[in-house]
Parts: sequence; structure tokens; C-alpha cells
Amino acid sequence: MERDTDTAGTPAASGAQERRPRYVYLGPEGTFTQAALLQVTSPQEADLQPCPDVVTALERVRAGEADYAVVPIENSVEGGVNVTLDTLSTGTPLVIVGEMLVPVTFTLCARPGTRLEDVRRISTHPHAWAQCRRWITQHLDGATHVPATSTAAAAALLASDEPNPGFDAALCSELSARQYGLEVLAAGVADNPHAVTRFIRVARPGALPGPTGADKTTLMVHLADNEAGALLSMLEQFATRGVNLSRIESRPIGDSLGRYSFSIDAEGHLAEERVQATLIGLHRVCPTVRFLGSYPRADGRRPHVRPGTYDADFRAARDWVSGLLAGLRVSGD
Amino acid sequence: MERDTDTAGTPAASGAQERRPRYVYLGPEGTFTQAALLQVTSPQEADLQPCPDVVTALERVRAGEADYAVVPIENSVEGGVNVTLDTLSTGTPLVIVGEMLVPVTFTLCARPGTRLEDVRRISTHPHAWAQCRRWITQHLDGATHVPATSTAAAAALLASDEPNPGFDAALCSELSARQYGLEVLAAGVADNPHAVTRFIRVARPGALPGPTGADKTTLMVHLADNEAGALLSMLEQFATRGVNLSRIESRPIGDSLGRYSFSIDAEGHLAEERVQATLIGLHRVCPTVRFLGSYPRADGRRPHVRPGTYDADFRAARDWVSGLLAGLRVSGD
Amino acid sequence: MERDTDTAGTPAASGAQERRPRYVYLGPEGTFTQAALLQVTSPQEADLQPCPDVVTALERVRAGEADYAVVPIENSVEGGVNVTLDTLSTGTPLVIVGEMLVPVTFTLCARPGTRLEDVRRISTHPHAWAQCRRWITQHLDGATHVPATSTAAAAALLASDEPNPGFDAALCSELSARQYGLEVLAAGVADNPHAVTRFIRVARPGALPGPTGADKTTLMVHLADNEAGALLSMLEQFATRGVNLSRIESRPIGDSLGRYSFSIDAEGHLAEERVQATLIGLHRVCPTVRFLGSYPRADGRRPHVRPGTYDADFRAARDWVSGLLAGLRVSGD
Amino acid sequence: MERDTDTAGTPAASGAQERRPRYVYLGPEGTFTQAALLQVTSPQEADLQPCPDVVTALERVRAGEADYAVVPIENSVEGGVNVTLDTLSTGTPLVIVGEMLVPVTFTLCARPGTRLEDVRRISTHPHAWAQCRRWITQHLDGATHVPATSTAAAAALLASDEPNPGFDAALCSELSARQYGLEVLAAGVADNPHAVTRFIRVARPGALPGPTGADKTTLMVHLADNEAGALLSMLEQFATRGVNLSRIESRPIGDSLGRYSFSIDAEGHLAEERVQATLIGLHRVCPTVRFLGSYPRADGRRPHVRPGTYDADFRAARDWVSGLLAGLRVSGD
Repeated sequence: MERDTDTAGTPAASGAQERRPRYVYLGPEGTFTQAALLQVTSPQEADLQPCPDVVTALERVRAGEADYAVVPIENSVEGGVNVTLDTLSTGTPLVIVGEMLVPVTFTLCARPGTRLEDVRRISTHPHAWAQCRRWITQHLDGATHVPATSTAAAAALLASDEPNPGFDAALCSELSARQYGLEVLAAGVADNPHAVTRFIRVARPGALPGPTGADKTTLMVHLADNEAGALLSMLEQFATRGVNLSRIESRPIGDSLGRYSFSIDAEGHLAEERVQATLIGLHRVCPTVRFLGSYPRADGRRPHVRPGTYDADFRAARDWVSGLLAGLRVSGD
Repeated sequence: MERDTDTAGTPAASGAQERRPRYVYLGPEGTFTQAALLQVTSPQEADLQPCPDVVTALERVRAGEADYAVVPIENSVEGGVNVTLDTLSTGTPLVIVGEMLVPVTFTLCARPGTRLEDVRRISTHPHAWAQCRRWITQHLDGATHVPATSTAAAAALLASDEPNPGFDAALCSELSARQYGLEVLAAGVADNPHAVTRFIRVARPGALPGPTGADKTTLMVHLADNEAGALLSMLEQFATRGVNLSRIESRPIGDSLGRYSFSIDAEGHLAEERVQATLIGLHRVCPTVRFLGSYPRADGRRPHVRPGTYDADFRAARDWVSGLLAGLRVSGD
Repeated sequence: MERDTDTAGTPAASGAQERRPRYVYLGPEGTFTQAALLQVTSPQEADLQPCPDVVTALERVRAGEADYAVVPIENSVEGGVNVTLDTLSTGTPLVIVGEMLVPVTFTLCARPGTRLEDVRRISTHPHAWAQCRRWITQHLDGATHVPATSTAAAAALLASDEPNPGFDAALCSELSARQYGLEVLAAGVADNPHAVTRFIRVARPGALPGPTGADKTTLMVHLADNEAGALLSMLEQFATRGVNLSRIESRPIGDSLGRYSFSIDAEGHLAEERVQATLIGLHRVCPTVRFLGSYPRADGRRPHVRPGTYDADFRAARDWVSGLLAGLRVSGD
Repeated sequence: MERDTDTAGTPAASGAQERRPRYVYLGPEGTFTQAALLQVTSPQEADLQPCPDVVTALERVRAGEADYAVVPIENSVEGGVNVTLDTLSTGTPLVIVGEMLVPVTFTLCARPGTRLEDVRRISTHPHAWAQCRRWITQHLDGATHVPATSTAAAAALLASDEPNPGFDAALCSELSARQYGLEVLAAGVADNPHAVTRFIRVARPGALPGPTGADKTTLMVHLADNEAGALLSMLEQFATRGVNLSRIESRPIGDSLGRYSFSIDAEGHLAEERVQATLIGLHRVCPTVRFLGSYPRADGRRPHVRPGTYDADFRAARDWVSGLLAGLRVSGD
């Protein structure tokens, strides 16, 4: 797990001694996002401020009111987090400088005295509901969903003085249940026990985190047109340089049906030749390419580098062509 | 626009005289889904029943309790509707037999006497909120979102006797505002005035709608592994037969990060040779391919058929090889 | 090594008892072609007639005056034999029904009494000269080439009564040196000791030799145009079906520079599904495809069949699509 | 047509005033090669020396005994000239600095007094014979071929005192017939009246001819293995940079059947970014790449440059990535 050592992606490294880094995150307190945040910093090291939504968190970094935002980007069950992908893809540039993985299981909690069999209405964020649908059918068949803006918000309302919160139980993180002093009716609730959510740490563009040998590069690209051929041409830019993808998600461009941008995580770091060559190729064939950061993988897995795509291979090839251009050397063998 | 004439995809066409088709749709009444439904049938022609969610609607068709379900599949702003894509992709087979497009703009409505400048809390479905975020910031800066399970549900609560609904206004369809007799504070609300949602009509497998020359085929495929090469191999099956894609969306398979299935709309009908050849190729290279229907395009746009990919080209090629196998003819020129 | 058992590719198998097969071959006697011929038949089993050139040999089969022609098609040093490739590629169809490999080393021979150091002028076929150039430079530096229409013709002239043959020695096959009773000055002459020539047995189209599991299919294709893309499209037809090539040679079409046909040996037999699918694809994307036979490989090497390209994979895929078309089954998983 | 102005590819431009360029060419005098040579220089401007064969001509340039060699490389009927392709592909590097096209039709000539109908034996180079085979069949059916080392050699022998040259007529260039004072029996002899041979001017590596906008780059590449996939990977290096091929010829590597190198003419000049990028890619994926020169096309035809492959596109893409690396700029749009 990465620790914030202020060496990478720090917008104001020079003044780091004088002031603590300012973090914003998708709040309220008690969300899984806060759990992700606590993997990389702590209230002792940094100022931590919850934001009501992803757009607000990212805009505060853009405006210079915070140094970092921590927001979710992808869930292994629900897929990409649209608002994060879309907000990063347009507007003032931001870059991802780190990622964190948080296993996602839920806690069903209620006001003291509530019995599991009495629960008929459950409040939680729609994504959480989607990830527990099967469990609900098996254990509380017929229970209905009362949407909340976050899992923690549902818990908070239950813990408040509100006489009629409109539901009987909240489905939230174990952290929330504990923070709000609610009674746990069921722990480890999840249709998929291996579900995990990926969070990112976002900063304004600046020095990139250095390559570790196990890195990701995140990109957003538009296609020249919506032909199968355009998607093939784009993917070939990666394939011919041996750059593998760990995530690819289509997003509608929004002006009409059938036009897509692609949000992509590629294995490797911008400092590596094969990633640079891929970006050069993408820039030529795609009308828009946005670089969204190179940063260490949370799982530390190193990519398999194909023969002919090591840095040395690219350098040797360029040197050979430079030599030809200089009219000095002629044979590549 | 397609009209339900009971000729295509009707599970029980023989008994059509005796009983009216039974439709279920994503309710409640007043949603955009109902507007889509009314494009293809009417209460005079069919039994129409709202369902609380997409899963329930589709399961009722699977169980034989309804003949058709009408549900949203894609929005030009928010992208694919995950629950629809995922529910169609697993479990008992269903097929899409038609599609409908509905322009999506919203109506901000309230109880009589409410003024626009008084609105501080707005209830609506999260997708609707996402599509009006910019409008809200411009016209009601600082207003907060109160999530609802549907746009119509927010309107219904406002129209009810509930003394404290918890919000001041609902963002819903113009149909809902009218049905519930609410006061319109703003009409045509939408960040993107061209936003459109695509709905599908789903049935149990049976005779497919016949080809019209302007059709779509919907598929769900898994890749052999998560290499860029596997995605390329899959896409080449389309490209080498000149079959273009009008939609491609990745969906996590759900067992871990980085494993995807792809939901695809291809141009053409299963009755066409190039679509059949593509499916044969996909079946060979992908561990899972699910056919989810061939049906007429709502926009009636005919695909550009590339030379060498007409039905006659495929037939001539197969006949030539059959002749070679029979040892009768030898030259292809 | 293949033996002629009259079961495969025999134009008149029914009358095989009554008459011996008639073979023509690139003569004269003593050439490497005769050595290839004797691998598959013998004067006891068949009528064997030399022809002055490849065109004549192939035309006699076309005219029905012979059942088989044996001619060279490829040499490991000099490449394809243009006249064979070109004659098979146009005109009345012929098919290859077998292949034979003959190691190619030469014998330098002379009239009795000639010493190696006296040799100044050497007669042989230009291809033979090309394959011994380095040996000549090392052992007989300054010796000049006197072209002959075949290696055997040079030996024959030396063995004749001709008082002044115009050269001192012949570079021919060991068989020729022996047949003509010449004195061997050097044996095993060859710049490349592993040089081998491939010969083919050609017949009129009829029943193909049955598949053995280690077969080749020979094709001639024209490209739609001379773009790199057209060559890629053609090769993809093989690659997407996992069909490997053991030979590919460009031949000018002859009407102008820069227009090519390609002569191709593919691994596999027309009876195999992946070869059939490849041919169907080629027929669609290439203006001309000529099938020139499927026959057992001389080296008996079996191809590596890639997963997803076995006959069973193709059949399962077609059956799945047939089922979809029948509206009976829907899921590919 | 190019004129030798001593500005390009001149090994010793500094001493150009003092000494005349020395040319060697495939002789003897009167061949088509001499006709090609006279397109670019003249006996007044340069020393011109015939060589007995292509290897000798090229070796004399390698040894510094000549500045330029003029040799044939390709014929529109017979294809590549193997000995030229093979000699350039191995050994001390040489580069092509120009090309010349010569229409190839033949003259049938004989000693005075010979009538066309008396001709039974015709001497010429085997390639010339191949290009007139159909004409011979039509006009002199049954006439036989007496091979010569060149078309001019056949004419020379006929013009000599030799009482019994062994043939009745020579098939040579019009230039030869005139030079040797032979009687013309038939002019313009050729099966294909548009046949053309391409000749090249070869020098030791040095400054390349500058780009003209209508150039060719000649390469020799080996494939990593003999799989269809390796050939595809190689060709994709050209296709993804929009570099078209005007010639591709396979040549056996010579150590065994089924292993090939490819001789390629690509459209464009080494000074162009898309050609450089292609060479860099080839260097990475192919075990051997030999650069054999960039030079003006004889036909002056300019290539169609695809959008995204202009020099400016490559430079913009590299600048963008350089900016990212500098951490200065982030968006590609």
C-alpha cells in the first residue's frame, strides 16, 4: 500500500514542510471512500474534508482549494463510476497519482431493538442495493429499497433524532455502523464476497509519480468515427507495442446514441518507451486523447513485457534509424 | 415506429385472437418507459402492467406471466442501463424483439403555490439528477438531491397527502407532471437537449422478427482472457465480415476487477449471411456468446454493406468450396 | 514417401486394371526430376516420358495425353520455379496430387582424361550454376559458365561424339554422370549442403487425395489492389482461422510493375473445416482464387491446430447458428 | 528521368571535379542494362565498364573499384531478379540511389541471308526466351532454345567469325542488333507489349539522395518465424503508419524450405516521419532489417498520404508526449 510521502504528484512540494496536505473525499464520514483515504493518509498527517459528491470533490482540487481528491472509479460488480470517469474526461486537466482497493461487504444495521425479521424498508445507496439484491431476496424477501445519497447518509439518518426516518434499517459499511453506534443485524452482507471497489487519488498536473515497474496509465480517447474499424485501429496502437489493458470502458459522448469515448487503464508507465510509443500512435489516429496519469498499481503486479517491446528495443531501433539518417550505418542486422 | 402486429416474436401467435398480449414495463405510471410502451401498443390493444424494477419485469416474462417487457437499455448521456444488460446476460434466455427511442427532457414540478426561487430540495431518480446537474447549478444553485426510485415516484409522493414529503419539487417527465396534477415550474429541463433513451421490447425466444434491411443484432460475449489481443480477436470477427457496431459496452464479469464481458449491438440481422458468419467466428474464439435478438432499428437507418459481404458473396463462396469438395469444379475465377 | 497406389487423384481409376498410368516429367533422363519421379513410381509400374520443358509437360496432362506430370516447383536456394507457378495459375485447371523432396547436390564430371585443374568452361543449367557459384570460386576460380537447358543436357553433350562441345566439364546430378558414363571430378558439389528441391505430381481435377492429417493446400490468389491493406486482408483470412502458411511467393501479374499474385501453400486439407472457411473468406475478398490441390506433405509434419479451429469447433459454431435460425435455442454458453 | 548530378549518393563528392564517376553495369554492351545506364550518364561524363554478371558488378562497387553499378532488379513479366536481390541482401552494405525503367521488347536477328522461315534454333538469355515463348509458338512453332548468358552474347556470337555458332538467330535488344550489324528478321517481339524492366543504380552507403516527395525506400526483412502471424505483424508495421508497398517479394533464406526473407519497396523516403516510424517498428519485430536506400521514383508518382501520417502529425504527437513527460501539459485535445 502506498503511503503519502509527498514525493510524487505533490503540487507544492517545496512548501510541504510548512503546511499539511489538504484532502477532499466523497463523504460523508464512514463511507468506503473514507476507508480508502485512510490507507494513504491520516487525520494526523493531513486535513481531511468530506464532499457531498464526486463533482464537488474534483472541482475543489481544480480550484486549488484542496491538493488531493479521493473518489471511487470502478467497482468489480457495478463497473465504472460514471460521474468520476466523465468529470475527469472533460474540463481543466487532473491526473491520477495513486489507487487504492477496498473490499466491499456491507453491514445491515438498525436502531437498537429492531429485529432482523421486522425489517421491511432498507435505505442505502443504489449501488449498494444492487450488490446485495440476492442476499435481500434470500433473507428479507419483499423488503423494499429507500434510496439514499450514500451508504453513510442512510446510517446517519437512522442515528439522528428523526422520529420517522422512513425505513427500518441501513445497509452501510462496518465503519459507519460503528461510527453511528447502530445495532448490527447482519455483517458481511454481499452477493459477491470478492467484490472490491477501486478508488483513486487525484491531483492537479505536476511531476508524475516515478515508475515502479508495476504501474498503470489511465487514458480517455475518442474514436474518429463509430466504425468497428476505428475501435480496431485504436486497440492496435496498444497491441503492436505489447501494451496490455487492465480496464476498458465505453462511455457515451453524450451528443447522440452510438458515439463513444473509451476510458482505458493500460499496463505500464509514461516513463516507459512502449507506453510513449502507444500514446504517439493514439495521438495520430484518435481525434482526442487525454492523459489521466501514470501511477503505481495497488496490487503490485508487474506486467509481462513481450520481446521487442523493452525500452532497450525501442532505443536500439531509434538509434538504428538515427544512424541511417546520419548516413553513417546501413545494416540493421 | 413499430406497431405490435403480433407477427414477430410472439410466443403464442396461434392463440392471438383469443387473448390480448400482456405487457409489463418499468413503472410506475408516468415514467419515460411508459411513453416508450405507448409507441408500440395501447391499453385498448393489450394488458399493461407496471413493475417496480427491471429485474422483476424481465423475470415475469421468463416465468410466462407476461408476453413482453419494456425496459430501458441505454441513455445517450449516462450510457448503458447496467441492470438491464446484466439481467439479459445471464439466466433463462430472453430476446429483444424491438426498440423504441424517447427524447428525454424533464419537467420541474411542485405543489401549487410553490415558487421556483423557493425550491431547495429536489427529488428524482439519480440518472435524471445527473442529466440536469448543470441546469440546477445555473437556475437553483445550492439545491440538493433527494433520491427517488423513479422520476414518477417523486411526483407521486408530491401529489400524495403526505404532509412532509422531504423535498420541494420533483424532476419528472411531462407525462408524470400532468398525470399527477402538479404545477410546472420549468419545462424542457435537460443539460443536453438532444438526450434520448433507448428502450427495448423483450420476449421469450421464439420466431425472430423478420429482416427489414435496417436491423440490429444484440449480443453479449465474454473474452478468452483480458489481453488486448483477445479484444482485438473478438472485434476482428466483425470487421472481417464488414459488420459494423452501433454500440459496445464493457461490463465487469463481477468475479474480480479487470474481467469484462461486452454488450454489443451489431448492424444487421441474423438472417443475413455476414451476421451468421460473424456469430460462427465469435462462437469459435469467445468462451461465451449469447444471442439477444435481431430486430428492426427504430431509426430505420440501413447499413452500408461493404463489397464482398453481401449475402450473394457468401453464397457464391460457399458454393465454390462445395464444388471443390465435390471434385467437380476447380477454379475460383 | 508417397507411392502411387492409384487411389488418389487418379483420373481414370476405374480403368486402372487395364492400363498403366502415363507419366510425363521435365527431362531429359538423368535430371533431378527423374529422381523425384522414381520416388513415386517405376518403369515397371508406369509409362514414363521425358518432356523438353515444364510447359509441355503440363500441357500434355491438360490435353489428356498423360495422367500425371512431375515438375519442380520450389528450390530452397533459388525459390519458386516461375514457369511452374505461372503455368499452373492460368489456363485449363490442374491440381497437385502429391509432392516429393530431392536433396540437391551436384557432380562435376568430364570426359575421361580431364583433370580438375584443366577445367575452364563448365556447362550446366543456370540454376545449378547459381547454387555452386561459391564452390567454383573456391576450387576453379575464373572458370566460366556455358548455359545448358538442363543439367542432364550438358552431360549428354559431353558424352556424345561431338568433337568440340564448347566446354570442359558438366555440373549435373550423380544419376546423370552415371547414366552417361562420365568421369567424376568432384562429388557432392553445392554451396549449401542442405539444398533441396520440391517436385509436384500434377493431374487433371478429379477426386482429391484423402486427408492424412499432415497435408498441404496450394492456392493462387490475386489481390483487390496493390495496397498493403489488401495483402493484410488476404493474410487475415488465414490467420483468423488458424491456418498457417508454409510457402508464400509473389509473382508479377505481368501487365505492369507493382501488381502481384501470390502463390501459397497452406497447412491443412480442403476436407478440413478451417481450410474451407479460409477459402470462403478468400473468395469474398480476393478477385481471383484458384485452388491447386490438397495433398499429403512429403515430410509428414502435422500442423499445430489452434484451439477454436478444430473441425468440431466449426461444426459446433454452425450448429449453434442454425439453431438460432430455427428459433429453437438461444444461448451460446 | 534522373540525371547524375553528383549531388546524391556520391561516395567522393569532394573530389568530383578531378575525376569522372566510374560506372560498372551488367554487360556485355548492347544489353538492356546499357540502355538503362545511358538514361543517367554517358561515355562523355563517366567511365562505363561492362561486367560479366551482377555479382561481379556489385562486388566492384563494394571493393571501391567503381562508384556505381547499374543492374536489373525486377521485370514486369518474370518478377524479381534473384541474384540482385540476394547479393544486395547479404555482405557489405550497398544502397540504391536511383532507378530507371526500360521497356523490354526484342529483336530477332540473324546473319545476312537468313530467312525467318529457316530459323530452327534461337539463342538468347532464358528470361528473354520466357518473355517471347508465345510469339515463338505462333511464328516459329517448333523452334528450340539455345541458352546464352545474355541477349547481347547471343548476338555477339552470331556476329563473330565462328563458322558454326550452334543456332540460326538471336533474340536481343534493338541496340545489340544495330551494334553488331545483324539483319533484323522481326522487331518488337514480346508476348506482353507493356513489359518493362526496372534497373537500379547502386552505391556504397553515404549521403542519401534527398526526398523529392515521390520516393521509394527499399528494405530486406527476415521474419521471426514462418507463421502467418509473423508476416502479418511485419506488414502491420507499414499499415499502421499508412506506408504503402509498391513491391513485395519473398526470397528463400536458403537454409531450408519454408523460411523466407522479404524484399520490399515502400512508398516514401527515410527523411519522412512515417517511414522512420515504420523502420523503428520493423527493427523491433523482425530479427533482421536491412535498409537498401531511399531514392526518387522513376515514374514520379507521389504517394497518397493518409490523414494522421503526415510529418506534422508525427511531430505533434511526439511533442505532446514530450510535454507530458516534462509534466507541463496534460491534455491531448
